[in-house]
Amino acid sequence: MHLPMQMKAMVLTGHGGLDKLEYRDVPVPALADGDVLIKVAACGVNNTDINTRTGWYAPSVKTALTEEIGLRGVSAEAQDLGSWDRASLQFPRIQGADATGTIVEVGPNVPRSRIGERVITDPCIRDARLPPLSQGILYFGSEYDGGYAEYTKIPSGNAVKITSTLSDEDLASFACSYSTGEEMLVRVNLQAGETLLITGASGGVGSALVQLAKRRGARVIAVGGKSKEQSIRALGADDFIPRERGDLFEAVTEIVGLREIDAVADVTGGPTFSQMLRVLRRAGRYVSAGAIAGPCPEIDLRDLIYKDLQMWGVGNPQASTFAALVGYIERGEIKPLVARTFALSELREAHTEFVSKKHVGKIVIKI
Amino acid sequence: MHLPMQMKAMVLTGHGGLDKLEYRDVPVPALADGDVLIKVAACGVNNTDINTRTGWYAPSVKTALTEEIGLRGVSAEAQDLGSWDRASLQFPRIQGADATGTIVEVGPNVPRSRIGERVITDPCIRDARLPPLSQGILYFGSEYDGGYAEYTKIPSGNAVKITSTLSDEDLASFACSYSTGEEMLVRVNLQAGETLLITGASGGVGSALVQLAKRRGARVIAVGGKSKEQSIRALGADDFIPRERGDLFEAVTEIVGLREIDAVADVTGGPTFSQMLRVLRRAGRYVSAGAIAGPCPEIDLRDLIYKDLQMWGVGNPQASTFAALVGYIERGEIKPLVARTFALSELREAHTEFVSKKHVGKIVIKI
Repeated sequence: MHLPMQMKAMVLTGHGGLDKLEYRDVPVPALADGDVLIKVAACGVNNTDINTRTGWYAPSVKTALTEEIGLRGVSAEAQDLGSWDRASLQFPRIQGADATGTIVEVGPNVPRSRIGERVITDPCIRDARLPPLSQGILYFGSEYDGGYAEYTKIPSGNAVKITSTLSDEDLASFACSYSTGEEMLVRVNLQAGETLLITGASGGVGSALVQLAKRRGARVIAVGGKSKEQSIRALGADDFIPRERGDLFEAVTEIVGLREIDAVADVTGGPTFSQMLRVLRRAGRYVSAGAIAGPCPEIDLRDLIYKDLQMWGVGNPQASTFAALVGYIERGEIKPLVARTFALSELREAHTEFVSKKHVGKIVIKI
Repeated sequence: MHLPMQMKAMVLTGHGGLDKLEYRDVPVPALADGDVLIKVAACGVNNTDINTRTGWYAPSVKTALTEEIGLRGVSAEAQDLGSWDRASLQFPRIQGADATGTIVEVGPNVPRSRIGERVITDPCIRDARLPPLSQGILYFGSEYDGGYAEYTKIPSGNAVKITSTLSDEDLASFACSYSTGEEMLVRVNLQAGETLLITGASGGVGSALVQLAKRRGARVIAVGGKSKEQSIRALGADDFIPRERGDLFEAVTEIVGLREIDAVADVTGGPTFSQMLRVLRRAGRYVSAGAIAGPCPEIDLRDLIYKDLQMWGVGNPQASTFAALVGYIERGEIKPLVARTFALSELREAHTEFVSKKHVGKIVIKI
């Protein structure tokens, strides 16, 4: 196949506001040993794109990721250490964790028979020297160029073949959010019949969690914006608590009684965090994969200690989790939830829509 | 054997200061099905005695357990919900988790052959209906009368036979602190060659942790009061950081480099808590069994999430952990560390000495 030398890409030129996103021509990536080249058809938008662009990951930032920060970025001083790894990213950078497309070329030591495969990208590029639960050292679209481009390269093992009648946009809605959500349930080992509290249930990971927890046969109590109750219940949530209510402890206790929650899957953090630990039963489990409502809440260590709680953070889903997810998609056990699509050149508009938080599910870029 | 009807006991009459402890005559406990009666020879003093007496467990209390609170109790308003279970204790109550002594009588369904056994008490009275990691529902000396008395009763399974040449006072120094410390290492699955950071290393659980971690072949970095460096190093700590230094992140990084700590065993909480998460490597483990330096610190959830950390609280050690501990004691693999002994009638003086935090190891009551 004849490949072009240049391609269109949305390039992030530094930490900051929407103006740091530039639509321009860049070279098609060169393949190294073990890489594949994907012609991208669609790529999902995730919180991590916004967190990285704005510099919100910097430890000096203690505030929620507001719409204002989402549009303009955190203060210039805070941007020095603005990546999740607490080290500065290299710019320019192409973001986008959720590429879907077709393999059009392979690097050395990859069978040419892969050319033509329809794939989705497992965004966690693992380093086997790291501890098993944390093998990602590079995240696709973060420390490594991602899918907001006509072509992208990734290690062959991270381009996972998928057989599905779903559209490209649908397939591009799964990788980052659903693998994160499923990994959260793997860490807390969620069982059928258990009761799970899910925060931020209308967002990408939250809406995935509702589906994935119901798939396991759990009872789901979902927290989300009042206006989204109907959409969240339609995903399968058994009970709904409007975020606007504020007193999460009281609301949960009204539904299930005192300290009867088996596990909490949290993607918001923020002021109600301490109540998430209070509602848990003894030996309850808490897992988080995001804290955009406030990354630095107060923790009452006496809840952790005297109820023998267990807590996990999920930054890096395991390869086995991603493989399981592909099976769920192929067997139709989970459904895509695409709120809206944009063209690659419209990524600023997509970010604007994303941070306004009016949608339920995923925003996807069609390329 | 002829047993008296009355005995001397130190009775806690309510939440508050030292004046809530009264030395008086009370009935010898009546045995129910499955109980044994122990003639107490010695009983260790633990933080939980102070936490309960003062009312510090109440969620409305956010401050460190200072010497002032230790002597006078928390404010009257805060004492309403002053137990670790967030429900009021029943008074009068006999405290004391660490009884050592001899079985002198047995209740129905306990073999009479147990009479005469030298025992130590496993303080966690378990309810098999609870989740495995949290089976204690009553803690000996807390929701259930304990060992600050001439006689005490406990379920037969919690009176564990021990064969040892150690003195009664020495044996009374182990049960609560060392089972808590060992359970912390069980939860984080500490391996030989790993590096463990231990806070509050001169206290009961802290000094136990140093010995128990060295027993597993780990490298120990201990944090404690500057004046206690020599004692803590004598227990086996490989490195020592004076608590007075404050900047724990910098101090740890000087010793092992950036993010190289495998696990943290924390018994203090307080202002340096967030730095304990910062020093952990990816997929690092944090476990806590106490937070007297401040129960409600700030947590940066981004450390939890983006390093895939795991956290545990330990309130209720498992029966298997206690059984293992008895083996360590019988085989001389850990040593008792009795700082000072007091008579039962001197428990107020013992509490005064305890909260002044000048000792290393355990304070024990000889009965």
